[in-house]
Amino acid sequence: MRTAVVIGTGLIGTSAALALSGRGVTVHLVDHDPAQAHTAAALGAGTDQAPDGPVDLAIVAVPPAHVAATLADVIGRGAARAYIDVASVKGGPMRELAALGVDLSGYIGTHPMAGKERSGPLAASADLFEGRPWVLTPTRDTDTEVLNLALELIAYCRAVPVVMEADAHDRAVALVSHTPQLVSSMVAARLGDADETAVRLCGQGIRDVTRIAASDPRMWLDILSANPGPVADVLSGIAADLDETVQALRALQSGEESRRKGGAEGIEDVLRRGNAGRGRVPGKHGAAPAVYETVAVLISDRPGELARIFADAGQAGVNIEDVRIEHATGQQAGLVQLMVEPKAVPALTAELRDRGWALRPQ
Amino acid sequence: MRTAVVIGTGLIGTSAALALSGRGVTVHLVDHDPAQAHTAAALGAGTDQAPDGPVDLAIVAVPPAHVAATLADVIGRGAARAYIDVASVKGGPMRELAALGVDLSGYIGTHPMAGKERSGPLAASADLFEGRPWVLTPTRDTDTEVLNLALELIAYCRAVPVVMEADAHDRAVALVSHTPQLVSSMVAARLGDADETAVRLCGQGIRDVTRIAASDPRMWLDILSANPGPVADVLSGIAADLDETVQALRALQSGEESRRKGGAEGIEDVLRRGNAGRGRVPGKHGAAPAVYETVAVLISDRPGELARIFADAGQAGVNIEDVRIEHATGQQAGLVQLMVEPKAVPALTAELRDRGWALRPQ
Repeated sequence: MRTAVVIGTGLIGTSAALALSGRGVTVHLVDHDPAQAHTAAALGAGTDQAPDGPVDLAIVAVPPAHVAATLADVIGRGAARAYIDVASVKGGPMRELAALGVDLSGYIGTHPMAGKERSGPLAASADLFEGRPWVLTPTRDTDTEVLNLALELIAYCRAVPVVMEADAHDRAVALVSHTPQLVSSMVAARLGDADETAVRLCGQGIRDVTRIAASDPRMWLDILSANPGPVADVLSGIAADLDETVQALRALQSGEESRRKGGAEGIEDVLRRGNAGRGRVPGKHGAAPAVYETVAVLISDRPGELARIFADAGQAGVNIEDVRIEHATGQQAGLVQLMVEPKAVPALTAELRDRGWALRPQ
Repeated sequence: MRTAVVIGTGLIGTSAALALSGRGVTVHLVDHDPAQAHTAAALGAGTDQAPDGPVDLAIVAVPPAHVAATLADVIGRGAARAYIDVASVKGGPMRELAALGVDLSGYIGTHPMAGKERSGPLAASADLFEGRPWVLTPTRDTDTEVLNLALELIAYCRAVPVVMEADAHDRAVALVSHTPQLVSSMVAARLGDADETAVRLCGQGIRDVTRIAASDPRMWLDILSANPGPVADVLSGIAADLDETVQALRALQSGEESRRKGGAEGIEDVLRRGNAGRGRVPGKHGAAPAVYETVAVLISDRPGELARIFADAGQAGVNIEDVRIEHATGQQAGLVQLMVEPKAVPALTAELRDRGWALRPQ
């Protein structure tokens, strides 16, 4: 790949352009707002001048609702040897393009599973996609040369290509991304009119469940609007579980022993199915969740405390896999939970104890 | 307080006993399994010998279903000047006691908002409650001396006392703890029969939403069985939102512009209510969520990398408020997100850049 055009210089488009430019590809930047394209160019993502002729790869990085029309336009103009989009849904745009009678041999729908809270070119970075799955949805009509250009882009972005059928992709993101977003919002929404005293009792559980409820409603409305069917299907499954669980809880209040027993079984069933499903969520290295042991160390909130802990752990030759800092409510002291491989626990605890740290008993 | 008895030497009972023993209180340990009480005694939580006469405070730390009977027994025997329980629900046990005709002037229901994944005396520690809310539910009948003994215990455990009415407590924990647990399980349960490829697409959002779905089903069945009404009420509210959201998503698939518009409004509404509710969740210091800025640093997975970062941050006089380590899928390199107060960002980024760290652009 020598030349590319990126249409839509938001977070994703500009990040891909930065990665390609970093590998010596000449990237032309286009946006419906020329100031955005100019900003991306100023960041080193490429040039906002139009190309002389057809480029190797056209990357369409516009919002889902505009993908099909934008692709139809660039394909119609013969702007490139290959065309991809990077939208978060894949089935609808492909069907729209087919309905418009566009020749799809030069096109692959793709979806990089990366993002961040902020949007726009200023939030972009060349390493946004590093190690993330990047879904490709080739069809029988897709030219091999086109597939290879998309794979070249993904390799330059240091992402991990995953080939899927377009509708299977849409069902998968409904399951692992779109539905969790809506459910997190619904749990958080219950707090809207809660008593202040009730809210004071929030712990780490609800904090984690509602973290993504802080996401941008406009962005999520766009995403959900492009994938309503699969999201409604997954939500309906949850709604059925929810209704059964409400029935089971009501049965627990019954005077009849057999009804109470049935209620308890229903609740235990949903909790156990939750265990099983959670067990399938991959950990940070993309494998099954790693089993780390936690070593908990008491610290004060002074600068340098964490540095000393990590330096001491390093002395023991121990790699800290993950860290969680728990501060006590209303206090400046807290607990650092160091997650390490089980075999590293004895060396780490011995080293930290030797160096005077207060450890919470295992 | 000079003497206490702890009945039920699990995680909570033994932790309270450790805190009291550490302050010089003579603690007598009782468990239906004498080996458990013996283990707690061996850990330094007190003695498993019976007291000579009435103690100052009896702490009943048995599972919710056994609280009322155990309290009725010790109150009937006049075993102490004051009696508390520490169960996760408060209204039911109080009504059971009243129905049994027990004199409640010497009793306060309490609930320390603390716990951990592991149970039993070996998981206990004197600092389990440090900085955590500890709910007290006194009534008009409660003696002031009894309230003061409970407050003394909470102070020795370095927890934060919160006074609530018993049923308000049960509604609050249904909202902030019990319902999030069930909903997390339901989202995770959807992954049970998902394709392996779909599961590969899981990101940090679903990882957070489903973290507590890994919790122990037996323990949660006990908790939920003791508070079915309030949990069913909160879940019913979520069920109504869920049904409306499914309708809104179906409306987005409609051919009618006005129906689609109504659907979009419905979805945006739930997302915005989620924003508002999430805004009320207290942060680590018990206040509204602190607004930290994130400085992201690329690291390799070698021991000592984190130590160097924290040491360098310490050099800049910057206190790291929270840390998140993101490893790239299938790779040994990752990104450390350092959360700091906004005013600390310039000093931190300058120091880290000077010392050769690769920062992700802000």
